[in-house]
Amino acid sequence: MFDDDRDPLRHFRDEFVLPDDGVYLAGNSLGALPKAAVGRVGQAVEQEWGRELVGGWNSAGWYEQPLTVGDRIAPLIGAPPGSVVAGNTTSIAIYQAVSAALRLRPGRRVIVVDRANFPTDNYMVQGLGELRDIGEGRFDDAAAVLLSEVDYRTGERRDVRETTARAQEAGALMVWDVCHSVGALRVDVSAADFAVGCTYKYVNAGPGAPAFLYVNPRHHATAENVLSGWHGHAEPFAFEPGYRPANGIRRFAVSTPHVLSFAALEAALDIWERVDLDQVRAKSMALTSLFVDLVGDRLELASPRDPQRRGSQVSFRHPHGYPVMRALIERGVHGDFRAPDILRFGFAPLYTRFADVREAAGRLADVLDRELWRDPRYAARLAVT
Amino acid sequence: MFDDDRDPLRHFRDEFVLPDDGVYLAGNSLGALPKAAVGRVGQAVEQEWGRELVGGWNSAGWYEQPLTVGDRIAPLIGAPPGSVVAGNTTSIAIYQAVSAALRLRPGRRVIVVDRANFPTDNYMVQGLGELRDIGEGRFDDAAAVLLSEVDYRTGERRDVRETTARAQEAGALMVWDVCHSVGALRVDVSAADFAVGCTYKYVNAGPGAPAFLYVNPRHHATAENVLSGWHGHAEPFAFEPGYRPANGIRRFAVSTPHVLSFAALEAALDIWERVDLDQVRAKSMALTSLFVDLVGDRLELASPRDPQRRGSQVSFRHPHGYPVMRALIERGVHGDFRAPDILRFGFAPLYTRFADVREAAGRLADVLDRELWRDPRYAARLAVT
Repeated sequence: MFDDDRDPLRHFRDEFVLPDDGVYLAGNSLGALPKAAVGRVGQAVEQEWGRELVGGWNSAGWYEQPLTVGDRIAPLIGAPPGSVVAGNTTSIAIYQAVSAALRLRPGRRVIVVDRANFPTDNYMVQGLGELRDIGEGRFDDAAAVLLSEVDYRTGERRDVRETTARAQEAGALMVWDVCHSVGALRVDVSAADFAVGCTYKYVNAGPGAPAFLYVNPRHHATAENVLSGWHGHAEPFAFEPGYRPANGIRRFAVSTPHVLSFAALEAALDIWERVDLDQVRAKSMALTSLFVDLVGDRLELASPRDPQRRGSQVSFRHPHGYPVMRALIERGVHGDFRAPDILRFGFAPLYTRFADVREAAGRLADVLDRELWRDPRYAARLAVT
Repeated sequence: MFDDDRDPLRHFRDEFVLPDDGVYLAGNSLGALPKAAVGRVGQAVEQEWGRELVGGWNSAGWYEQPLTVGDRIAPLIGAPPGSVVAGNTTSIAIYQAVSAALRLRPGRRVIVVDRANFPTDNYMVQGLGELRDIGEGRFDDAAAVLLSEVDYRTGERRDVRETTARAQEAGALMVWDVCHSVGALRVDVSAADFAVGCTYKYVNAGPGAPAFLYVNPRHHATAENVLSGWHGHAEPFAFEPGYRPANGIRRFAVSTPHVLSFAALEAALDIWERVDLDQVRAKSMALTSLFVDLVGDRLELASPRDPQRRGSQVSFRHPHGYPVMRALIERGVHGDFRAPDILRFGFAPLYTRFADVREAAGRLADVLDRELWRDPRYAARLAVT
């Protein structure tokens, strides 16, 4: 424990591009570049697009990418083959999932959400029904319950099994957002009705990488895709005048996949095929626990102290959190800040070492103990924080 | 005329990767690779993602890409700065545009479409209102009129100015799909209410490149984005619990842009900054007219004979169109086939030579005159045609 030499995942670090100096603890926001993605994206551009041209839709498998890549994401979230479609963005997948849930529960229009959900989740569905905060505790007239497995601010992890059962017992459909858990722990949304997630965080598929949508197979014949585009049609190349949904998960495809972004995702998934998710979770809990211990009482912990109740992220509160993070980033430790007062540190188990945790904690202690964050140049906000 | 040495656009051909042998006439489906895109995408992967990591949202301009790239697309469609947002797919942009139109015309629920629209246009909006074919001729109770400037099958071009005026005089909002015209002629949708289009055809931005959405500035304060994601929020990084739309075109942004796909689009747009669209249109009409003349009465012309009424595409009908096209592709001429009987040939003016037109017409004549398409191996359908 806490020993890099005994870490069974240690060799994966060599497969990523990481800063020569400093510690990257923002993999919960944007995962690091897998070295193999350079060649894979280059191949998609130069060979597939450049040489195959329009033939790439067949020969390079572009047309099937949303399903073939979806099948490769499925093991990361406990889903069976043929139940995940990749593409678009998490926000759009949420819109599809909750719209479908409302149509499957025509007598209900309440959507239970958490005010602490990542905001876009709630923004996307606000026009679809009546939003109710989970704090009110009532599911019995809800069409859908939309929650994040891991809270983006505090890193707190919900009990997927218990919450899914509770929603379904009340007759609601359960929709999980696993953006902050996929690739960080052993996600299992198989019992849920829908799940959505992104691949640019712990999955390491690059900025704006395709999102994914899981639909429980029991809904494949009845759930409707409100974004009824041609790629979800039973015969897209028949160019029929009316929409006729495909069978299975394909009906949740919408339109032309972003092929170059898919190429990077494919390279990222090549790594995941060789990863044991139980080792990921064990290392994640050890990394975050070590950081919590080393920071000690210098900062107020915003994350659960029990590692079982955390994702792969540790958050602290500080009234001057923004300049603290800027001062720390200038010293090579890359976490991020979330308003109003949260310092976030993500620990991607595939490329973060225990030595990195010690180094980061040491530099953070320096910034805090010597009050380096009081330098006025750290006060000015950047456009995107 | 018909002389490559006198073509003012001839030097652009050197900026694209094209087949060593054969003629690529499917740029109306997927444009050729700009050589500069190889380096630009590589830079996005290796430098921006690999080195800047999460800092790329600021330092590499990722966050603003939907608007900065939108502003670079605007001149191609006659739109003013600040009126175009890039991202997602054409299907999704259609859903946003028509949803917004229906909310701007609350007393109306008819959407006038053309049965000859590219099918996804009609599929996407079928759940939003009552579809009526333009053949019925009534606009007076319509909320929106959704039409393609250039028909994907026949290449027929509609009169944008006349149709827009007619729709608006009837109190309807005009939504143009310019997928088959942007980059092929001087598009001007500035008087329309909305316009959508893709960038992977004549714009040459690669498979699954970002789409775009134009919203007439007169609607910026009142039009609603049904896909109300966090990137359309007035302050996305304030993480407010409720959605509050941004001012201007930004409110039509949805969520995280597909950064790697945007990189290729940026390289494609670098070329367009140096292109005179009037020269593009003049050459396009000359290319297509030459092909029509050379094919002569070997095939039934499905496109208008008047080049002013065509896009940059020529279509023919043949009862055995599928094996004819396969036989032709095997001889190095890459057009495509659309059910039931359409042979399509796209002429991208930036990289197609008059010599290519002559070569393609010669090989097509050979396939037809010698009935080479009767070889049984051309009968079997490929998955994507």
